[in-house]
Amino acid sequence: MRPDKTTEQEKPAAEGLPREEERLSRVALMRMAEAGDPVMGRLIAEHGAVRACVNARRGVLPPEFVERERERVPASRRGTDLDRLVTSWAARYADPAADLARGREGGSRFVIPGDPEWPTQLDDLGDTRPFGLWLHGRANLRLSCLRSVSIVGARAATPYGTTVAAEMASSLGDRGWCVVSGGAYGIDGAAHRGALAAGAPTVAVLACGSDVCYPTAHEDLFRAVRAQGVVVSEWTPGSHPTRLRFLVRNRVIAALSRGTVVVQAAVRSGALNTATHASGLNRHLMAVPGPITTEVSAGCHALIREGKAVCVTAVDEIIELVGAIGDDLAPPRKGPPRPHDALNDETRRVLEAIPARGSAGPAAIAVAAGVDLATALACLGGLAAAGFVASGERGWRLSGARRG
Amino acid sequence: MRPDKTTEQEKPAAEGLPREEERLSRVALMRMAEAGDPVMGRLIAEHGAVRACVNARRGVLPPEFVERERERVPASRRGTDLDRLVTSWAARYADPAADLARGREGGSRFVIPGDPEWPTQLDDLGDTRPFGLWLHGRANLRLSCLRSVSIVGARAATPYGTTVAAEMASSLGDRGWCVVSGGAYGIDGAAHRGALAAGAPTVAVLACGSDVCYPTAHEDLFRAVRAQGVVVSEWTPGSHPTRLRFLVRNRVIAALSRGTVVVQAAVRSGALNTATHASGLNRHLMAVPGPITTEVSAGCHALIREGKAVCVTAVDEIIELVGAIGDDLAPPRKGPPRPHDALNDETRRVLEAIPARGSAGPAAIAVAAGVDLATALACLGGLAAAGFVASGERGWRLSGARRG
Repeated sequence: MRPDKTTEQEKPAAEGLPREEERLSRVALMRMAEAGDPVMGRLIAEHGAVRACVNARRGVLPPEFVERERERVPASRRGTDLDRLVTSWAARYADPAADLARGREGGSRFVIPGDPEWPTQLDDLGDTRPFGLWLHGRANLRLSCLRSVSIVGARAATPYGTTVAAEMASSLGDRGWCVVSGGAYGIDGAAHRGALAAGAPTVAVLACGSDVCYPTAHEDLFRAVRAQGVVVSEWTPGSHPTRLRFLVRNRVIAALSRGTVVVQAAVRSGALNTATHASGLNRHLMAVPGPITTEVSAGCHALIREGKAVCVTAVDEIIELVGAIGDDLAPPRKGPPRPHDALNDETRRVLEAIPARGSAGPAAIAVAAGVDLATALACLGGLAAAGFVASGERGWRLSGARRG
Repeated sequence: MRPDKTTEQEKPAAEGLPREEERLSRVALMRMAEAGDPVMGRLIAEHGAVRACVNARRGVLPPEFVERERERVPASRRGTDLDRLVTSWAARYADPAADLARGREGGSRFVIPGDPEWPTQLDDLGDTRPFGLWLHGRANLRLSCLRSVSIVGARAATPYGTTVAAEMASSLGDRGWCVVSGGAYGIDGAAHRGALAAGAPTVAVLACGSDVCYPTAHEDLFRAVRAQGVVVSEWTPGSHPTRLRFLVRNRVIAALSRGTVVVQAAVRSGALNTATHASGLNRHLMAVPGPITTEVSAGCHALIREGKAVCVTAVDEIIELVGAIGDDLAPPRKGPPRPHDALNDETRRVLEAIPARGSAGPAAIAVAAGVDLATALACLGGLAAAGFVASGERGWRLSGARRG
């Protein structure tokens, strides 16, 4: 039996294993285990990354760990998947020093839990927390994500969707918020571009190595993101994207930010996978409505209908949700300003029920405003005191000064 | 003191006053009191329409009624508004036989509570229930409204709004539902036209006499509504619309149907007044989303955001709400049909997390699908049994037959 070594990986270097050994182990684990593999996540949590790496490379796990893992799966599958998993880990080992050198030569840096730039909100991912992250870009990932919103959506977005994504991102940037997205065509790209246009940092979380440009047509975009924000990857440099990696990557987009806005998404769409992760992480989930005639808004409407996402139509409404309570309340949507904007809802309805010309009785005004007579009379009294209305022989009328 | 005579107006003619006297009294009351005047509503409820008419014409109300009414209003206003109201009633009396004759000559019929064509759901309006209704058109109002939905919205609608209103109305018509609206430009007109195009009855509730064409450009539309549906008014023939009447009329639109759909509405809009009435009457309130860049959808989005209205994007979703429970459930919105549509949500997500080519381990699949490992394994087992996936040396893969 090995001695119990829990959470060793996050202790400062002075207390235990050298920091660089921890870093190299995590680079190696990135190749050996699939990103987000929860079995590996638990092995690291219990034995530290260095020991986990040694175990995985040998293909032999601590017996008590194996015991607990076997209890997690149905009896019928015990002894097959875990053995296969550990065998695959061992088979995929490669020299981490070479990976680290290659990444650094390409301009990326490798951050791990405990580093100053590590975004601690990723701890919410629990067993599926990334082993480490490759970062490429001028912005500090942790600081950028303190006030950040993810904007995601369909690759096959409409001009409406990309316009909304870009304008929301730009407006968030103006208000000091960082936009996180996935660097894809459509909504993602528009969101990054909007943030860049506002001179704000933006975070692109890729499903491939931080040195791989996918989609290739986004080479200029990624260059701009690196110059002003940061590109993030949990895969070894040179890794190419797969369908699985896009889905696995989405949990990081959801976890990095305080909330996720789905701008456009068909009913089956990767953006809805990000939405699922955001909900699971107790992050705010928001969706932008659009024409019901566009298939690519149907996923957003479904999220809203089912009460999974809040309907958002303006950046104020997004910030109200993700911002500090009380600090960032959204103003209610309103038409052009009018003198009676300050009135409360009932009083405003009573005022609006008074005819533009002539007079009306309080009973008729009450019915038109949808309030009871006593309420109407109370409101009319207040409105008269404020000079909005006057009472005459034939009932209540707008006072001359306020008629226009 | 007069003897207590409650709800006399709805007893069959044989039991009390002749039916025609009741009808004439209600025609007279329509002129004397504002539509929906709750004081008159209570007077009728307590003393019957015939007695109420006699009282109103004399300008003298039963003392115990006056006493109760005075208690309803703040002490500071007692003795002013009610006296003024009763004086105005008396001043506005006109021979009801002439009104009745004029209306009938114009082709309208006058229905009152207790008539076979009276829609009893208007009783939900309580004190503001219409005194009677002028109807003009071939359809039976009560029968048409048994399965009806109100579709309302902005006069200044966009082509998107009018298209949606027309298509929803037409589709509701196809499914045996009647559309109620207000006969105005924009959403109202489009809704009526959609219903007519489906060969379905439609109900236009006007804010003027049933013989007055407002807006005048809707002369052809109203002719078509009369031929296939029915035009409704609670004003004396020849009456012209006022701003107050539009608002008062809205409560009838809300009350006649099982639910109200707001297709487009700016944040301050008469359609939102109808929405307020619908909510107050415990009718289903629904709103159609649209582009956030269109001011005329902002009122709909506000209703959805504030939880006042349900977001609806298709007629199925409307009927699910207003239809009989269990009979009319909306199918969930979905993309093009695929063989695995029958799978439950978790299993589908697991299936979609399996790479199109190659294999993946169960842990990676679980992470990508956003489920735990035990769930992923259970789903994979089911999927394998159904022939969707197969387990091999390198993990799980899509089975050949289902890959396309």
